[in-house]
Amino acid sequence: MRIAIDAMGGDFAPREIVQGAVAAAKKYDCEIVLIGDEKQIRAELHGEDAAALRISVVHASEVIGMNEHPAEAVRTKKDSSIVVATRLVREGSCDAVFSAGSTGAAVAAAQLILHRIRGVGRPAIATPMPTPDGVTLMLDSGANVDSRPEHLVQSAVMGSLYAQHVFGIERPRVGLLNIGEEETKGNEQAKETYPLLKAEHNINFCGNAEGRDVPKGNFDVVICDGFVGNVVLKFAEGLAKTILGLIREEIRGAGLMAKLGALLLMPTLRRLGKRLDVREYGGAPLLGVNGCCVIGHGSSDAKSVASAIGVTVDYVNGKVLDQIRDALAKKGDSDRA
Amino acid sequence: MRIAIDAMGGDFAPREIVQGAVAAAKKYDCEIVLIGDEKQIRAELHGEDAAALRISVVHASEVIGMNEHPAEAVRTKKDSSIVVATRLVREGSCDAVFSAGSTGAAVAAAQLILHRIRGVGRPAIATPMPTPDGVTLMLDSGANVDSRPEHLVQSAVMGSLYAQHVFGIERPRVGLLNIGEEETKGNEQAKETYPLLKAEHNINFCGNAEGRDVPKGNFDVVICDGFVGNVVLKFAEGLAKTILGLIREEIRGAGLMAKLGALLLMPTLRRLGKRLDVREYGGAPLLGVNGCCVIGHGSSDAKSVASAIGVTVDYVNGKVLDQIRDALAKKGDSDRA
Repeated sequence: MRIAIDAMGGDFAPREIVQGAVAAAKKYDCEIVLIGDEKQIRAELHGEDAAALRISVVHASEVIGMNEHPAEAVRTKKDSSIVVATRLVREGSCDAVFSAGSTGAAVAAAQLILHRIRGVGRPAIATPMPTPDGVTLMLDSGANVDSRPEHLVQSAVMGSLYAQHVFGIERPRVGLLNIGEEETKGNEQAKETYPLLKAEHNINFCGNAEGRDVPKGNFDVVICDGFVGNVVLKFAEGLAKTILGLIREEIRGAGLMAKLGALLLMPTLRRLGKRLDVREYGGAPLLGVNGCCVIGHGSSDAKSVASAIGVTVDYVNGKVLDQIRDALAKKGDSDRA
Repeated sequence: MRIAIDAMGGDFAPREIVQGAVAAAKKYDCEIVLIGDEKQIRAELHGEDAAALRISVVHASEVIGMNEHPAEAVRTKKDSSIVVATRLVREGSCDAVFSAGSTGAAVAAAQLILHRIRGVGRPAIATPMPTPDGVTLMLDSGANVDSRPEHLVQSAVMGSLYAQHVFGIERPRVGLLNIGEEETKGNEQAKETYPLLKAEHNINFCGNAEGRDVPKGNFDVVICDGFVGNVVLKFAEGLAKTILGLIREEIRGAGLMAKLGALLLMPTLRRLGKRLDVREYGGAPLLGVNGCCVIGHGSSDAKSVASAIGVTVDYVNGKVLDQIRDALAKKGDSDRA
């Protein structure tokens, strides 16, 4: 398996990306292709114990910045790292692409270069949200907004197949993110989507999920519009950071006994942090395009990158793409019939 | 000041409601009117040290349950506690109403009995979300969905006036909840609302707020559709509960040293919990109706009820209603001109 890594994408690129890729090459059974400024990448690799690893470099002279218009930048910067990396997947020389750069650019590159799977109106980003017993897959978490009900149903089918073949959950519990449990609750989008999900035989639809069900893990897959998903995802990140900051602040201002307590409790708090750390997952698959594409957080460090590459390896091994192609092509045929 | 309390609303009514009301009557300069089943309320009062307090009881023979259709129930159950309580405000015998019962019923009663303020298309629930330095007021958090851009602008004006006159913030920073900082980002609703907020001279509009800005406290007032706000609010509640549960679980499974650490750190963790506890605020004002109406969480205990009554007292004292009436009537006139 060969994975194309956008070495220039992310706040700490290329250093943390290269370090994460090296860690992943040691840990997972995969070959890594780093795409970006060859000189910079080689300089980073030089400092790593990487000579014996299956890592190669493909030069790309341009970078798409966080504030560029995604589709426009993908069209004009033909030699940007994300475009070249995505093209390697298109050409079949790599099995997947990972980028921690501009999410918009990664989505645009995937759409324009890999194209959508037949039967998919809009691709969706499926973010694994930590729960006490594992994760809830929330999609779409920001690829598209103002999605039509049929797009949400396609997301549900894709998310369910991902949970099944990558997480190994036999009949993933699929929920529709809504503001009440009853079928009649919600905005127009949710009210129109509910009966479609109920009628969809490809999934195990378990009704509406409320906001609280996401962190509690009451569903394996939660479906929502990309606007709502993105707000929730960023809210969760902000809240986690805020709580950690407050804990530090309270301990700093506390007495000696409390400081001793914090010290003794540290391994426990660390273990808890690990259970809640999005970096343990690090990457979110973009479902619905003809190729495995995984998106990382802009602030990804080496650890997040390594675990995101782990997500990518699992994604490829799960052969989810074939499953999605099958299910949605058949669904499209039967919907038209 | 007299406050009407729906004594039958909430998961732990009437006990926790009555206990909270007693605590509030001791703490705040207000008279309390408890509305509901007189026998039950008197029985609860009997156990409390309430004889010297300014607490009276108004009998109401019916209760609106959590699963009833709000508007229908309000129309048919004329003698339900929330309807009678809201009517006391309408008649001028009380200055405000508080309920921890069905949010839908409280909103419907307020709309049908108190009516909307002229210039307000849709009322909005303004929930104070805890931040490191205080709160961010998030509205609408669930009164309405699929709001039009002008409704969000009205919410912005109302939320800003509330933050100014109740929280004492001179020029509240108002943000539009969105999925990116740039003006061009977002769904249709957000893209149409942005320029209207920018042009609104009644507020200090500071641009788009992302999900992470809410817990970080980067804005004083964050405006969103009730669908998004409700999902975020319930997500926050669920996450907070999940984290607390995990801390307990980790400590239970930890070694003796960690247990000792937890013990020593307990006062610090409690202080932190207090800073993040929504119960410290307990109540969310429903803005946009002709009367002060405050809504509490269904799971409110006596502590939440007492602090929600504190919110209600502040709301009345802030004379926000007059401010809102003035601003929106003038705005309506100038919008029409």
